[in-house]
Amino acid sequence: MSIETVSKNKSFGGVQGVYKHRSSATGTDMTFAVYVPEHAPGAKLPVLWYLSGLTCTHANVMEKGEYRRACAERGVIFVAPDTSPRGDDVPDDEGYDFGKGAGFYVDATQEPWAKHFRMRSYIEQELPELIAAQFPADMARQGITGHSMGGHGALTIALRNPGRFKSTSAFAPIVSPLNCPWGEKALGGYIGADRSAWREYDACALIEDGAHLPDLLVDQGTADNFLDEQLKTHLLDEACRQADMPATIRMQEGYDHSYFFISTFMAEHIAWHAERL
Amino acid sequence: MSIETVSKNKSFGGVQGVYKHRSSATGTDMTFAVYVPEHAPGAKLPVLWYLSGLTCTHANVMEKGEYRRACAERGVIFVAPDTSPRGDDVPDDEGYDFGKGAGFYVDATQEPWAKHFRMRSYIEQELPELIAAQFPADMARQGITGHSMGGHGALTIALRNPGRFKSTSAFAPIVSPLNCPWGEKALGGYIGADRSAWREYDACALIEDGAHLPDLLVDQGTADNFLDEQLKTHLLDEACRQADMPATIRMQEGYDHSYFFISTFMAEHIAWHAERL
Repeated sequence: MSIETVSKNKSFGGVQGVYKHRSSATGTDMTFAVYVPEHAPGAKLPVLWYLSGLTCTHANVMEKGEYRRACAERGVIFVAPDTSPRGDDVPDDEGYDFGKGAGFYVDATQEPWAKHFRMRSYIEQELPELIAAQFPADMARQGITGHSMGGHGALTIALRNPGRFKSTSAFAPIVSPLNCPWGEKALGGYIGADRSAWREYDACALIEDGAHLPDLLVDQGTADNFLDEQLKTHLLDEACRQADMPATIRMQEGYDHSYFFISTFMAEHIAWHAERL
Repeated sequence: MSIETVSKNKSFGGVQGVYKHRSSATGTDMTFAVYVPEHAPGAKLPVLWYLSGLTCTHANVMEKGEYRRACAERGVIFVAPDTSPRGDDVPDDEGYDFGKGAGFYVDATQEPWAKHFRMRSYIEQELPELIAAQFPADMARQGITGHSMGGHGALTIALRNPGRFKSTSAFAPIVSPLNCPWGEKALGGYIGADRSAWREYDACALIEDGAHLPDLLVDQGTADNFLDEQLKTHLLDEACRQADMPATIRMQEGYDHSYFFISTFMAEHIAWHAERL
């Protein structure tokens, strides 16, 4: 389990690195970013996972997310994976919302996607082992967050792995792929026509089916162009109320879907995670 | 003097805008970014100018600079212009360090550059008038900073316009175009072979020739690949000492030339400016 260092830059006293490795889950090279704050020799730091949205790589949040100051202050490692397998032999779709850059954090079962599009296994199993082995990470203290498709990833991975994450949050998440066009296209393509198989990739369905988190923080902008058709934050709110699951879902007046929104609330999310880690 | 709004995004309570206008100085369309914090109706806010480095547009610092939190907290407008004229009829050079993206904040006198490469007039005269007219800006309270070529721009513009800026700082500035390859190429090309004419575009020469600032903050990374050949921070230190000009020049251990460095110290620079504005 070796990794190649693509770049390292000192920032806010710590090191922002970009790394590449051969993934057995996806059968491709995978790139990811890790920020490690300055720390005492031998110290192990808690880990916050950040899953990115459609069209993104590891780089978007690394460049625009403004997480390093808060992570340095709180002593939190920040891990930002890619959103899909990449490479010339990886199948793709013409749309921005399916194929490369749009892995939806699922293990695909349908051809031609099943071979490489195994982002669930990659994020749930392979990459955590690699982070534990290669970085000063205390894997008993993990939190997870993400944006849009990555918010969907954060919610569903946390819900399916009870106890693994001490904290879960999301920025403008897709809360129910069963109930939006992005989800219809992606899960129909990756998982197939049997919609019952989609439920483990649907945060609202997982909660309905009994999965539970101790608490949850969600920020959603009211000026987000995708709110009404794709994100439907109210469905998560309803699912949490029905299941009596604590959730802090904040509608943020005038904010859109961009990193101008994410960066505004990033430090609050990191503080919220750090208090629980 | 009209401007076109390219985009507006709410961020940290204020508005990050991108605007376009027809510039009489450069004879081209010019794009710039302005962040206006939330403020009371009718209030006028101080202005911090940020001049960018080689290859950059208005967008680099807007995306990677991490200035909005500090500007929102301190109530400071942040203006980020482009680094050169743009357009199909604007001459260019094959190098990244001359022509488009490399205006060096000079008014060119040599052909074919003299017609459009008038970034000195644009930054010193035209854009301030436009900012004063179109934004809630208190032009009696201006500060200026910049990175690399933009640090050179900030220093030379402040030195040539005594009293206009209440505060001046720079990140990894080019301190003496007379004494580095970037300067030789750019000033030789834009201004011509008479090196005495370069002195008004050289911070160290301006200080030697009697220009003076009440104080100055400079951060420079020790791991900056351009330090020894291009930036030569020690020349500025020596010029300030010779002229008995107060200057806080901080060599930051292990930091490079990137926005990972700039963003680390951005909030300190904004605080430093805000205290003087």
